[in-house]
Amino acid sequence: MAARPPHQIRLDESEMPTRWYNVLHDLPTPPPPVLHPGTGQPIGPEDLAPLFPLELIAQEVSTEQYVDIPEEVQDVYRLWRPSPLFRAYRLEKALGTPARIYYKYEGVSPAGSHKPNTAVPQAYYNAKAGIKRLSTETGAGQWGTALAFACAQFDLACEVWQVRASFDQKPYRRMMIETFGGTVHPSPSELTAAGRAILAADPTSSGSLGIAISEAVEVAAQDPTTNYALGSVLNHVLMHQTIIGEEALLQLAKVGETPDLLVGCTGGGSNFGGLAFPFLRERWAGRMNPQVLAVEPEACPSLTQGTYAYDFGDTAGMTPLMKMHTLGHDFIPDPIHSGGLRYHGMSPLISHLYETGELSAVAKPQTECFAAGVLFARTEGIVPAPEPTHALASVVEEALRCKETGEEKVILTALCGHGHLDLPAYDAYLHGRVVDHGWESADLQASVAKALTKLPQLA
Amino acid sequence: MAARPPHQIRLDESEMPTRWYNVLHDLPTPPPPVLHPGTGQPIGPEDLAPLFPLELIAQEVSTEQYVDIPEEVQDVYRLWRPSPLFRAYRLEKALGTPARIYYKYEGVSPAGSHKPNTAVPQAYYNAKAGIKRLSTETGAGQWGTALAFACAQFDLACEVWQVRASFDQKPYRRMMIETFGGTVHPSPSELTAAGRAILAADPTSSGSLGIAISEAVEVAAQDPTTNYALGSVLNHVLMHQTIIGEEALLQLAKVGETPDLLVGCTGGGSNFGGLAFPFLRERWAGRMNPQVLAVEPEACPSLTQGTYAYDFGDTAGMTPLMKMHTLGHDFIPDPIHSGGLRYHGMSPLISHLYETGELSAVAKPQTECFAAGVLFARTEGIVPAPEPTHALASVVEEALRCKETGEEKVILTALCGHGHLDLPAYDAYLHGRVVDHGWESADLQASVAKALTKLPQLA
Repeated sequence: MAARPPHQIRLDESEMPTRWYNVLHDLPTPPPPVLHPGTGQPIGPEDLAPLFPLELIAQEVSTEQYVDIPEEVQDVYRLWRPSPLFRAYRLEKALGTPARIYYKYEGVSPAGSHKPNTAVPQAYYNAKAGIKRLSTETGAGQWGTALAFACAQFDLACEVWQVRASFDQKPYRRMMIETFGGTVHPSPSELTAAGRAILAADPTSSGSLGIAISEAVEVAAQDPTTNYALGSVLNHVLMHQTIIGEEALLQLAKVGETPDLLVGCTGGGSNFGGLAFPFLRERWAGRMNPQVLAVEPEACPSLTQGTYAYDFGDTAGMTPLMKMHTLGHDFIPDPIHSGGLRYHGMSPLISHLYETGELSAVAKPQTECFAAGVLFARTEGIVPAPEPTHALASVVEEALRCKETGEEKVILTALCGHGHLDLPAYDAYLHGRVVDHGWESADLQASVAKALTKLPQLA
Repeated sequence: MAARPPHQIRLDESEMPTRWYNVLHDLPTPPPPVLHPGTGQPIGPEDLAPLFPLELIAQEVSTEQYVDIPEEVQDVYRLWRPSPLFRAYRLEKALGTPARIYYKYEGVSPAGSHKPNTAVPQAYYNAKAGIKRLSTETGAGQWGTALAFACAQFDLACEVWQVRASFDQKPYRRMMIETFGGTVHPSPSELTAAGRAILAADPTSSGSLGIAISEAVEVAAQDPTTNYALGSVLNHVLMHQTIIGEEALLQLAKVGETPDLLVGCTGGGSNFGGLAFPFLRERWAGRMNPQVLAVEPEACPSLTQGTYAYDFGDTAGMTPLMKMHTLGHDFIPDPIHSGGLRYHGMSPLISHLYETGELSAVAKPQTECFAAGVLFARTEGIVPAPEPTHALASVVEEALRCKETGEEKVILTALCGHGHLDLPAYDAYLHGRVVDHGWESADLQASVAKALTKLPQLA
């Protein structure tokens, strides 16, 4: 027993990183600018000031290599950080693989996912700027839960517009947001002009993430004491998540390991970027050379099937234009169970890194992902959220390849959340009610092709 | 920052206790024997052999001070153990108390509660004895989840009879059991004579824990390759849980603390005993002198309002007779949200310690408990299961008393599980739909008085 490296690789609180890593400093080539949709010119801080506090705007465009984590944010992080890194001994044994599999687990956070890593600093900087309330949208509810918790730490009110379909079908997330003190409105709502316009046209609208964004942004734009918060995609959000990768680097060093392969799921890109960016820095510095693999759902394959172009971040076309891999802002993905991966675009930073060959990507059908999730639950004892089962599907595939070749590959994956509130998805899978929405579907290809015709034309 | 003791007090895997503590060795006075209901004489191992493997029967009656934890069990424990001890800094701050509050958190386990601490060894010893399948009952579902996970580790089939009302109303637990590979039957079922008899009399029966026990026991008794497993009450179950208290002792020592007060919730007594027994040993050895407080629901107050008498462990009267604090095996508690505390009796060991003045007890109404649970969630970031909110209600009460007196009392409580699958209970509380079922209710007192008239008469 004593000779075996531990299953849990822990860091003491005193070892928790005190800086976020800003990948913009080290990019081999700079990413394209964000553009104003009206002028086609790069946006400035003043364009973002109605929605975000100045410190977050500064972080969005900063090229400093590191940003100090405020003591008040560290103090909240310590409720669950440093998060554990686990060696998946029992999964390895079940697969019979010589590969060594490690997973960095963010499900220990208050929201049960990586989202509080950015929700907490966002709430902190807003409170510091005198803001009294944050508004946001949420789909499945992970982000809304994280922001409600974060707001409770800094005495901010939190209003969440949740897509009506999720509000009705997945009430546990709404209940958790309320337990943390947040207020949830089904979207479309009668509380905003955007919501009322949708309801006037269709009183039974089940909503969409794009509509919910419109409502949350409208409320923030109209009230000087209310700001808006976004849970993925933007540079500062991904930077806050780099504490995941920084911790994982320290933890792997404790057991003398260097990863050969990093695997993470990608929706907007914040979990993936949070794990991968510090390892890319190490690769660029010549200290290691891991392959970096993004796994997305076949039903929403923005990296593997999307176009790299300027597009809106929301369905309604209210945001600045970002150059990113996109399926078209008008594209509505099929209702797969990984709500956190149903986004038409991909973070500009991840898109840029993909375009410049720094990372590779693959798309997986959800039944393969659930099979990996069930195997993981029965061996490692954690029921994963449906999103990271995409990464697990690729981990299993690679581990079985190592079984063929005998390669003792070191694989690191991001287990970005637990699936306790996603059990109905497992129930559907176990009882044969989950179907794939693969790229071979002519309907899916036609739907993406149609959405791509609506990409904005630049001046 | 560096000067402050950490929020998380961790043990390395190498520090995980390798022995369970058997409180029977150190009891100031021996507990009354378990009796055969037919003869009125103490039962022997042969009476238990149809249901349990010999190693567990031996543990049930052992008076050795320690029992080694098998390496195979330790290997599974390491998936989540040692579990964290937390200092509740943010709760203390919210209460403005000089008390120092620590909580030992078992929600990191695969089932989300302390139950796997005994489910894993029970599955192990049964598999070692050649058993192929375990049967059990479950109410809200925590125990069934734990046993399904444990069986998956040792290639045992797991069949769970779940009270029909819970099966229908709380489907997430059933889904989690199935995700771990278990099979769930709503009880009463057509699969057993006991179930069929109930259904013949009442085809719409919503079941009870007593009926579910009858079905699970019947299946185990009839098949030599199937055994039965129980999640609380029995001596060996409480012994397996002592790893909680042993770890907490080591963790408190790391920060130089000695508890003045231990607080735990009590249903069958396994969580409470698991925390308290090692501390009682320390008290009996003169090394510390903590007050030990059991908190039970007002709606099911077996310690504070029950009678200390021989009674059956199940509603149907199929088990041996145990001397315990009981509300009568015929008593059906009101449907409070803490399903794990709705048991008519109390572990014989806990009852004996209460009767001999080694611990005190108090009953709490559930609205006070939910208020403490919501405060805890918003400050410490963990939504507690409804059961441990009973302990938290007493912790808050004591911390506020310390605020009055200025006493820097060290309080240790058992946070035995998370409430992710209990969010509908929080929803009911936050929206004013939770009512108390207090002891002042004439109906409750009459119901207990009636059940106590049905206590078995000894020969």
